[in-house]
Amino acid sequence: MSTTRTINLKNRPTGKPGLNDFEFTSTEIPELKEGEVLLKSEYVSVDPYLRGRMSDAPSYIAPFEVGKPIESGIVAEVLESKAENFHKGDHVLGALAWKEKQVAKAKGLMKVDENMAPLSAYLGILGMTGMTAYLGLTEIGKPKAGETLLVSGAAGAVGSIVGQIGKILGLRVVGIAGTDEKIALLKSKFGFDEGINYNTTKNMSEAIGQACPDGVDVYFDNVGGEISEAVLFNINKFSRTVNCGAISQYNNTELPKSISVQPFLVKKSSSMQGFVVFDYEEKHPAAIKQLAQWLNEGKLTYTETIKEGFENIPQAFLDLFDGKNKGKMVVKL
Amino acid sequence: MSTTRTINLKNRPTGKPGLNDFEFTSTEIPELKEGEVLLKSEYVSVDPYLRGRMSDAPSYIAPFEVGKPIESGIVAEVLESKAENFHKGDHVLGALAWKEKQVAKAKGLMKVDENMAPLSAYLGILGMTGMTAYLGLTEIGKPKAGETLLVSGAAGAVGSIVGQIGKILGLRVVGIAGTDEKIALLKSKFGFDEGINYNTTKNMSEAIGQACPDGVDVYFDNVGGEISEAVLFNINKFSRTVNCGAISQYNNTELPKSISVQPFLVKKSSSMQGFVVFDYEEKHPAAIKQLAQWLNEGKLTYTETIKEGFENIPQAFLDLFDGKNKGKMVVKL
Repeated sequence: MSTTRTINLKNRPTGKPGLNDFEFTSTEIPELKEGEVLLKSEYVSVDPYLRGRMSDAPSYIAPFEVGKPIESGIVAEVLESKAENFHKGDHVLGALAWKEKQVAKAKGLMKVDENMAPLSAYLGILGMTGMTAYLGLTEIGKPKAGETLLVSGAAGAVGSIVGQIGKILGLRVVGIAGTDEKIALLKSKFGFDEGINYNTTKNMSEAIGQACPDGVDVYFDNVGGEISEAVLFNINKFSRTVNCGAISQYNNTELPKSISVQPFLVKKSSSMQGFVVFDYEEKHPAAIKQLAQWLNEGKLTYTETIKEGFENIPQAFLDLFDGKNKGKMVVKL
Repeated sequence: MSTTRTINLKNRPTGKPGLNDFEFTSTEIPELKEGEVLLKSEYVSVDPYLRGRMSDAPSYIAPFEVGKPIESGIVAEVLESKAENFHKGDHVLGALAWKEKQVAKAKGLMKVDENMAPLSAYLGILGMTGMTAYLGLTEIGKPKAGETLLVSGAAGAVGSIVGQIGKILGLRVVGIAGTDEKIALLKSKFGFDEGINYNTTKNMSEAIGQACPDGVDVYFDNVGGEISEAVLFNINKFSRTVNCGAISQYNNTELPKSISVQPFLVKKSSSMQGFVVFDYEEKHPAAIKQLAQWLNEGKLTYTETIKEGFENIPQAFLDLFDGKNKGKMVVKL
């Protein structure tokens, strides 16, 4: 029996995770059984939501087990198949373990086509990231042409897609990000109308008011925390906040406090709604189809940060919390 | 020209309003013109939302002017009419000034029938209060039979109706209130399954968990603040919070801080939505019809606290913030 390098969860981190919360081990590759395939990982997705699975707080998805491999979205090559319709050389997408090689049930894997889009795109714009952007914005944000869309974490994987979809749908789109370089990218590459650098802006609430002179109708919130507090002062009557993530608060060891949102919601007949992409599973095929169409029409573009090497997966994940990625962060093996 | 006693806004209060924010004056009663009626106030509604109108912060409804009369829902008798369809002796409901007598345009007044329900009911269960309960619960809470409904401010005017409607619709209903007497009333009179006295409960989050063993699906929030923080730990996946009010926070002079809701909303795919009853104006007739039907079928009951005397209107309003009312607070002149 041969073995493969594996990355396990070593500790449940308190606060910000570190390299010492991960453990490199060697695990055995079992015999291939009927209905299974042997896979070689090619691209590994690292995502902020994995932080939640490292804790054992109740969540929408089971926590990782200590001493067991981390899992995320992975594009892999089929090395050997005992499953119908899967052949050596195929590329597949699945929720797989952080292993160089692994045996997986074919059921639950989706074949992806290298000729239609680069393999890494299936972890990003045509994968969970793109669907999160599209379904969150359309299902919860309910954007209408002419309205103003504000996006936090705008230069991130989801945010940069949200902004582009907002423009396709005819909205004024304003993005919040943390460096001037990111702000420039928002405007030059992703077509945002305005950008606000939260690291160099003293009064965020005022800056949002200036960038959104008609107020905020849809707020696509990837970050939570102080930035989202500042947004509250600028929301319009009947505005919708899409709570996609709260990356600014995932590493807090105490429950973070913010300005109470309730009085703002009451005053403005305004809504906030959280979601995960799995809530809309029946809409995934239509979402992928729409995203692929816009991509092929040249209406959507995307950025990815590709790190290389199996051994760099944990660091790539940690870099997310320092805003070191532009767009989707992926590790190529 | 004769005069009438009038209550003006004297100051914009900071923090909790007091008697010295109101001013009793005498104002002239103008000549009756075509399309107008002369009214004698009979029942005056005092409501927490009036606190908002005493400030000049932007809100869903224009602020009162300093030196001008306060307005609220008032049932009045027609003393004289120069308007079609309105006759001496009719009873009408309208948004009227805190005056003993006044001239008002007939347009904007609704005739009410003393034989169908007591006059004060048109300020409560068949008025804004009842519609707020019914429309907030059904339009935003989207309750389903078998789910658990939690109501804060449960012994208040809106809360006690919300709970009863929840029972009519087949939900488990738990109420939060501030005295043992109120809790007893919730169960004996309004049919709540459980009640929690927040003044005698040390760990609210735990108490809510015990009273709602299947978690909270719909939270009808009249209070905001610490109570609503405790609820967050008990919300179910896809739960809906109806943000009807935040009375615990209206008198704060600084923006109150609470545990950040965003991580909870994201984890639970949960929503919060504020509203005012005016948002659903086209649904008001159907709402009143449904409420009147339930009332006549004996499925709905209500409590009101009736104070007497024009001079006691300001104190009745102030008493709302000390929880001195059971159900709808009304002043009879």
